[in-house]
Amino acid sequence: MKIAFLGLGKMGTAIAARLLTQNTVTVWNRSERATKELVEQGAIAATNSAEAVREADIVFTMLVDDAAHEDVLLEKGALDAMHKDAVLITLSTFSVAFSEQMLKETESRTLRYVACPVFGGPNLAEQGKLFLIPAGDADSIEKARPVLEVFSRGIQIVGERAPAALAFKLGGNFLIASVIASLSEAAHTASAHQIAPELFLSTINAALFQSPFYEAYAKLLLKAPPQPAATFSLGAKDVRLFRQAAVIGGNDTPLADLLNEYFDAGLAEGRKDEDWASAWYAMSAKTLRPPPVAI
Amino acid sequence: MKIAFLGLGKMGTAIAARLLTQNTVTVWNRSERATKELVEQGAIAATNSAEAVREADIVFTMLVDDAAHEDVLLEKGALDAMHKDAVLITLSTFSVAFSEQMLKETESRTLRYVACPVFGGPNLAEQGKLFLIPAGDADSIEKARPVLEVFSRGIQIVGERAPAALAFKLGGNFLIASVIASLSEAAHTASAHQIAPELFLSTINAALFQSPFYEAYAKLLLKAPPQPAATFSLGAKDVRLFRQAAVIGGNDTPLADLLNEYFDAGLAEGRKDEDWASAWYAMSAKTLRPPPVAI
Repeated sequence: MKIAFLGLGKMGTAIAARLLTQNTVTVWNRSERATKELVEQGAIAATNSAEAVREADIVFTMLVDDAAHEDVLLEKGALDAMHKDAVLITLSTFSVAFSEQMLKETESRTLRYVACPVFGGPNLAEQGKLFLIPAGDADSIEKARPVLEVFSRGIQIVGERAPAALAFKLGGNFLIASVIASLSEAAHTASAHQIAPELFLSTINAALFQSPFYEAYAKLLLKAPPQPAATFSLGAKDVRLFRQAAVIGGNDTPLADLLNEYFDAGLAEGRKDEDWASAWYAMSAKTLRPPPVAI
Repeated sequence: MKIAFLGLGKMGTAIAARLLTQNTVTVWNRSERATKELVEQGAIAATNSAEAVREADIVFTMLVDDAAHEDVLLEKGALDAMHKDAVLITLSTFSVAFSEQMLKETESRTLRYVACPVFGGPNLAEQGKLFLIPAGDADSIEKARPVLEVFSRGIQIVGERAPAALAFKLGGNFLIASVIASLSEAAHTASAHQIAPELFLSTINAALFQSPFYEAYAKLLLKAPPQPAATFSLGAKDVRLFRQAAVIGGNDTPLADLLNEYFDAGLAEGRKDEDWASAWYAMSAKTLRPPPVAI
């Protein structure tokens, strides 16, 4: 399969590297530095995004937000340069509203569009163990499936219209933020009663959740990793986008509204580049006022 | 070991039945009806709580709340009737403040007191698979360990003072309420974007949590069980007690405060005897205003 890959951050680079093993992959990135390593592994470097996509059967994007997609796909002309049988597959997390716009833009060009957000970070991408939740027309997803399987441990189609996948992914990220917030609140309270947060979090996972996810996030909460698993500002963005998705759907989001207030407070404290779990825990230690004296 | 067991609701009956297989168990319950089945299995029925505890090495209570403990242990004289080497082990979930009172009452009588709340419902109690989080003096817990092992799949000591175990357990129940609330909010939003709640909940568990707990609660959320796993009013009580425990510890609880508002709304709607997960999901379907038309 001929593949174009636009956007070579940590996630994009890891996924493109796996795709290289079975496909012809043309890569493009805003800064050229990121393409070098992939070219050494056999990728073809394009000088601009329109050139990158011209021959591709599948065009993947892993770009940071709505604005980057708008710039690369629309303003820089990549969408206009795609050939008519090609499928656009967006892998990143952005707004439902922009996904609706992309759906219109691709339909007006008789192109096919699948939104396929991923669960998992760069490590899992390197190991080919992301979890994919594509939405879009079934034929396009089936055409892409062998390519998607190269970097995934699971693929679950979640809808026939691409924007549903973004609503799904934002709901997932909201759930992660809820886990971080509730674990922080409970662990600080336990700590105020002389229970070590480590003991509280490991025991509660053994007693209730039995989840590798909780185990991993308890570690992140209590010890900031050298490289954030996800930054605080990314979490803030996704909870904001979840609220927007809910509003589009006619829903209120009391819990997400509360989390949003906390994210705003953390951003105001300058935490944007910290890991979201450890930043939240550190922030709430102050907000939640641990006791001045042992009880 | 000579055991007294006070309080034979579903949980108490299931635990007492397991204890019977290896110990002499004297049982007492407010209504005598509940003792019949256990007596047929070999238990000795006592006519009052003081009589039940007189010969016991370990006195277990599984009573509904602070008031029931106060009535049975203090006003009806069970504590005064215990012999001096006996250990009181409370298994139920009640307030940290009352646990502090019990600590004073037992210390003034030179009795030993372990708070040992349990995670898991009647089914797990019958199978001997509860998770126990005792707090209290180490010798008493070690003395009781062989007896505790008969009905548990795990025992984690969480502190040297009994009240810590209640703070721990209430933190756990607060986390469960947070899971229910966040899953409800996310599943309703997904549903507003044409993603079936069943698909959302099973996929998010496969993609993120990989937790048997989430799997079980997703089922409770979407389909009210014939017998509530926990009633809405029990959940409301425990979140209220978690907030009190946090206040004792000097903490704020913004998330628990929000959950408490929802519990109050549900209680006002008359949901007290419903399963807490399905009641919350049903209630939030109205509160969250699902869309009047498909988008």
